[in-house]
Amino acid sequence: MGARPITFLSDYGYDDEFAGLCRAVIARIAPDALVIDLTHGIERHAVERGAAVLANALPYVPAGVHLAVVDPGVGSPRRAVAVRAATEDRILVGPDNGLLWPAIERLGGPVEVADISLSAFRLEPLSATFHGRDIFAPVAGHLARGASLAESGEGVDAESLTRIAPPQPIIETGRVVAHVVSVDRFGNAALDLADSHLPETGLRLGRPIEVEAGGVTRPAVFALTFADVEAAGLILYENSYGSLALAVNRGDAAADLGLESGAEITLRPAD
Amino acid sequence: MGARPITFLSDYGYDDEFAGLCRAVIARIAPDALVIDLTHGIERHAVERGAAVLANALPYVPAGVHLAVVDPGVGSPRRAVAVRAATEDRILVGPDNGLLWPAIERLGGPVEVADISLSAFRLEPLSATFHGRDIFAPVAGHLARGASLAESGEGVDAESLTRIAPPQPIIETGRVVAHVVSVDRFGNAALDLADSHLPETGLRLGRPIEVEAGGVTRPAVFALTFADVEAAGLILYENSYGSLALAVNRGDAAADLGLESGAEITLRPAD
Amino acid sequence: MGARPITFLSDYGYDDEFAGLCRAVIARIAPDALVIDLTHGIERHAVERGAAVLANALPYVPAGVHLAVVDPGVGSPRRAVAVRAATEDRILVGPDNGLLWPAIERLGGPVEVADISLSAFRLEPLSATFHGRDIFAPVAGHLARGASLAESGEGVDAESLTRIAPPQPIIETGRVVAHVVSVDRFGNAALDLADSHLPETGLRLGRPIEVEAGGVTRPAVFALTFADVEAAGLILYENSYGSLALAVNRGDAAADLGLESGAEITLRPAD
Repeated sequence: MGARPITFLSDYGYDDEFAGLCRAVIARIAPDALVIDLTHGIERHAVERGAAVLANALPYVPAGVHLAVVDPGVGSPRRAVAVRAATEDRILVGPDNGLLWPAIERLGGPVEVADISLSAFRLEPLSATFHGRDIFAPVAGHLARGASLAESGEGVDAESLTRIAPPQPIIETGRVVAHVVSVDRFGNAALDLADSHLPETGLRLGRPIEVEAGGVTRPAVFALTFADVEAAGLILYENSYGSLALAVNRGDAAADLGLESGAEITLRPAD
Repeated sequence: MGARPITFLSDYGYDDEFAGLCRAVIARIAPDALVIDLTHGIERHAVERGAAVLANALPYVPAGVHLAVVDPGVGSPRRAVAVRAATEDRILVGPDNGLLWPAIERLGGPVEVADISLSAFRLEPLSATFHGRDIFAPVAGHLARGASLAESGEGVDAESLTRIAPPQPIIETGRVVAHVVSVDRFGNAALDLADSHLPETGLRLGRPIEVEAGGVTRPAVFALTFADVEAAGLILYENSYGSLALAVNRGDAAADLGLESGAEITLRPAD
Repeated sequence: MGARPITFLSDYGYDDEFAGLCRAVIARIAPDALVIDLTHGIERHAVERGAAVLANALPYVPAGVHLAVVDPGVGSPRRAVAVRAATEDRILVGPDNGLLWPAIERLGGPVEVADISLSAFRLEPLSATFHGRDIFAPVAGHLARGASLAESGEGVDAESLTRIAPPQPIIETGRVVAHVVSVDRFGNAALDLADSHLPETGLRLGRPIEVEAGGVTRPAVFALTFADVEAAGLILYENSYGSLALAVNRGDAAADLGLESGAEITLRPAD
């Protein structure tokens, strides 16, 4: 039987060889493993953003070993972990800083956890600052080849995993105060808001709304897709992960509204 | 027999997980397909640029399924299509907005076309805004595994495909007015001009020329390669796709001349 | 027996299709070869930087064919070469401009060298400006499939290879003048300095030091890892390749100190 597929997400970027070296280390251990780069473009040290992307991506990704490295605490006592989730025998590998938590939660929670900080699979000499290459990649490679969690590290209590909670909108009668969770290449801004939050707010699909950002209020429409408004029109829509998001048809909502991650947005029915 | 290779070109960029998710979707359907990323760095919504890159690339690329997504009209009634071309049984998959046309034309024209907008292979729930993940990638995966076009969608008239025509230079006796088609990382600017346009213009290989851009006229040489002029010298040369292009030896022609896609360039013999 | 793995490093960037086309050419020749992109983000024409990344990477990379293209002299009479190194039968392919030399040296020196400028494996028509696609990639593909160096080009004297020497620090009693070799995405600045240079300088692990850059002197600590100082603290540390480097814990040393490649840094014990 061949190796399991490995997905790989990081904040290593593309200008440096960091992600390439991790892939090379994996290739030495598990040359037949299919390695799928989800992205290495997570903003540096943006643990929450990486966590959200990973959790959103997993439903579309083959079950296997899911390697994720956004690790501002590398070299500190933060643990390195491998976590078996309840669903499809998926295994997540990365720093225990919350990065893996939303994905684990979505996969039904942790079933088995190993502290791999001193894994027998680590490379020697172990660098203090590049655990992607020296710990996470080799452990992921061995797990893809069928090694057990017990072989990859020391069993620890699943309750001890670091958790992070996604931001939450403030829902009021007749308005909602949400936050920008991410801005993509197209200038579309995902909010910490889903359809399920809306009943109280008075926001209704197909109806005009008001979007207040940075002290400026703009008219918009709560619509299905970009093409439901004219070019340059502002819409609120459900994005491809089921979150509500702001976009400008054939334009750039983030640029037009001055939006960055964390920005506060107030939405109201316009009528 | 294994799956056919898949090439993949898009304007998804690298900062987001869009291209990675499409690859993940393909991997679930056709895990043994070799997927070759041509580039995901096409400027956002630049359909003509994507079309030119795809058409230029195909002669160097293994015959298989050629997935391309530059799709400003996603969510509008524009069709999604799969097209079998006359040459080597190559299949192109993408939005029917002209992106595929120059490649299809170069491959001898369309032989069979399926509207895949409601493909049985699409993912459900179908998002309104990420058809790369939900339509194009799964259809490409199934076609790579040997599914027929008839299985992937509804047959439509090949004549109904959206066509785009590349820009054309204005050829006059003693001069040519051309346009910048693209600028690459090295600052080299490809023009909508080929050797075949030159007989009337008086431009001759090895001869000095004048290049007028942005109201400024500069001396240059029509040469074979960068090294035919001193460092910082401006040349007109035939680039690796057979288009004429402007470069500065060990420099950056686009920066020096202030060139962007679409810029007008006048070329004249200098003597 | 399958093809050998191929690693690929270049300054082609990600916005253009250059690296993708080279991979496509390889896939036509050696479809079963595992191709590992080390990075295509080397700064354009930065031969010394590419050389350092390649040499640092190879110990972590499966033995095979190592393709590298940073080639400001493409089209000039500079040679294209394939080089078999003394260690693990590794073969390096690229321009003979020094890019390959530090890696070759680290692999025990060259055992066999072929000038592949006119290789029988090259694509025709040969472009003057894209030898990655037309010479280096096809030669790498054939070598990965088991072709000999003699089949790939014309044997030449190993002594004729172009060599480059990495920069050297100036070591004095009580201080060292080093240079920034590279700055990574995290703002960490690697120096041309290693532990072996330190005995004379008075710099000792765990001790406070002074870092002078751009006329400004700052306090720092010579420590093992980022977390050995408070957030925003400046450290000198041994990076994951065994070079000394400057970092700011959870910050950006290059931005804070105004560092670029080549910048001069003076280090002194602070006590």
